[in-house]
Amino acid sequence: MNVTVRGRSEAVRTVTFEVAHNVVRLIEQRLLPHEFKIVGTKDFRATARAITDMVVRGAGAIGATAAYGLAQGVRAFRGRDLEKFTAHAGVVYETLKAARPTAVDPVNAMQQVLRAMAQGETVAERQSLALAAAEEFANEDVEHCAGIGRHGAPLIRDGMRILTHCNAGWLAFVDIGSATAPIYAAQAEGRQFEVFCDETRPRSQGATLTAWELAQQKVPHHIIADNAAGHFMQRGEIDLVIVGSDRVLGRTGEVANKIGTYTKAVLAARHKVPFYVAIPLSTIDWNLKRGFDIPIEERHEEEVLGAWGSTGKAGKRAYVRVANPTSPARNPGFDVTPAELITGLITPAGIFKPKDLWAQRHKLGLAD
Amino acid sequence: MNVTVRGRSEAVRTVTFEVAHNVVRLIEQRLLPHEFKIVGTKDFRATARAITDMVVRGAGAIGATAAYGLAQGVRAFRGRDLEKFTAHAGVVYETLKAARPTAVDPVNAMQQVLRAMAQGETVAERQSLALAAAEEFANEDVEHCAGIGRHGAPLIRDGMRILTHCNAGWLAFVDIGSATAPIYAAQAEGRQFEVFCDETRPRSQGATLTAWELAQQKVPHHIIADNAAGHFMQRGEIDLVIVGSDRVLGRTGEVANKIGTYTKAVLAARHKVPFYVAIPLSTIDWNLKRGFDIPIEERHEEEVLGAWGSTGKAGKRAYVRVANPTSPARNPGFDVTPAELITGLITPAGIFKPKDLWAQRHKLGLAD
Repeated sequence: MNVTVRGRSEAVRTVTFEVAHNVVRLIEQRLLPHEFKIVGTKDFRATARAITDMVVRGAGAIGATAAYGLAQGVRAFRGRDLEKFTAHAGVVYETLKAARPTAVDPVNAMQQVLRAMAQGETVAERQSLALAAAEEFANEDVEHCAGIGRHGAPLIRDGMRILTHCNAGWLAFVDIGSATAPIYAAQAEGRQFEVFCDETRPRSQGATLTAWELAQQKVPHHIIADNAAGHFMQRGEIDLVIVGSDRVLGRTGEVANKIGTYTKAVLAARHKVPFYVAIPLSTIDWNLKRGFDIPIEERHEEEVLGAWGSTGKAGKRAYVRVANPTSPARNPGFDVTPAELITGLITPAGIFKPKDLWAQRHKLGLAD
Repeated sequence: MNVTVRGRSEAVRTVTFEVAHNVVRLIEQRLLPHEFKIVGTKDFRATARAITDMVVRGAGAIGATAAYGLAQGVRAFRGRDLEKFTAHAGVVYETLKAARPTAVDPVNAMQQVLRAMAQGETVAERQSLALAAAEEFANEDVEHCAGIGRHGAPLIRDGMRILTHCNAGWLAFVDIGSATAPIYAAQAEGRQFEVFCDETRPRSQGATLTAWELAQQKVPHHIIADNAAGHFMQRGEIDLVIVGSDRVLGRTGEVANKIGTYTKAVLAARHKVPFYVAIPLSTIDWNLKRGFDIPIEERHEEEVLGAWGSTGKAGKRAYVRVANPTSPARNPGFDVTPAELITGLITPAGIFKPKDLWAQRHKLGLAD
């Protein structure tokens, strides 16, 4: 998408690869929204650290980063010994896999690169195939998001007010995003509408990342407290909800996403506001039998007890403790929304009712 | 309630009056939870400023502050001229009324003081009656809260997990609080339970004031993000909700309260978790015909765009800008919960179904 830096607009992706210097280039997302900066990781260990330290986050974005990191790692190998090369590739793979142990996207992305590499007979061929496969993974991610945009854009009509939660924007993918894809596509088609960004406590990805994205693309928007969406729905001021997801169960249609998503779905159902979940097909989990079994990470309580922001002095980042110093917190990171609250899943293959996923599983890419 | 300051426990009220020096004493609530300090206002103008600047907040607390402020103001009058005294009392009244123009409690409290004063024939008598009436108002506020506690305590059983939103605690009244009254009463009866405090963005009164109160009284509690209550209800981890209210409509049973209350009521109804609203009778508005007509204040967007907290350096308070610097916010301060979502209203006169208020209006103090 386009980003305006010091008055100049340029097209950027969240993750790219600089072939000449064997460097992975990433938007340093921890500095957003207060500073826009692209950083380079010079070897696969630095790339793994960038995943661990959340320089880059979001399903598609960390998938592509891992794919590029694997290509970067194997391309740094010197020599022609295939056995040593394979051992080295294994180290690169395991290092990147361990960077975010619970995420499934880096593993899937790297498996795709490994499968391509296996077609090569020499070290040089495999290095070259790895790079091509990583580029292909990234381009596919962009195409998938563009597909979500094509299918989702017709849902957005002139004058609509759309609620979104957390950041399922282009920063979470290689480009375009999932929940934001219909928004950017409808904007490109010339429609006028407004977006409400849920702040999304405790990490505030809505107020920081989604709001920054929308401001960059000049999409009219307001940030609201997570407490406010119910009031706006009650007053008839929200017409549509679009969110992303970390995992959709193919067997039940249940949707795991950032904490608070379930609450918005309950409110939307009460007010008959259509509630859509935008996902690439890779988000569908065809194995797990029920949403209750999705592990819900309890994150550090400091996130709930305070807030990170800028003090205004040259954008310096600071943490303030908001809460009573002697009180503990609980901090579940995700929740699970049942299928009956979801109007539809917007995918690159079209819009589906969550309950229909299983019947459509072959069309949606599940091999027998 | 008891507050532990530098290791020593002492019983304090939110608002008191020091007769000898004609000073209103207030807990400086803007410093909480990071610092506990009682400040004095030396004349009625300083008392009005303390209301405006939110040194003191909460229905009962600002009511008592205005009542004491009026007594303070008329007691400062020198002379015996009844006409001049009455003119002076009018200035005091209008100054305190203008301190928080949308609040109804200061007006009701001061009317009570003015009615008492009217019984006096001399300036000295009226000054003395004003003080007695202000003290009576404060003591009644404490009694009302104690009554809420008596009626509400039986709802709390051993092992329960209770959700509350915002601060309807003793800091919002002269003592005891409304939503907290059943909690403190059940604790005094020896029952063991746990409280979830909604953070209550954007002003975080749950994370700051309610959590501080509960910590002072040694009530086991956790702070949670406003996004998390739905998840905990879904998992069966919340058994009861008790909140306060700024205004309950006597004709419809609708409840206006801090933004986010409506959302919690919708979630509670879905999960069949009892949802109670604890109020003194003065919170009931017998005139307004429908909740939609309750004016919803849109507060300053800076509240949503950032957070106030302590930087850790000697508890120094600082504001951090969390949100994207070029994004606007919307910030409705309150929402309205319909009667059908409310299990019961806990009042000093007993527990009532919201729909039954009008039929019980004479019992509940509405004069014909």
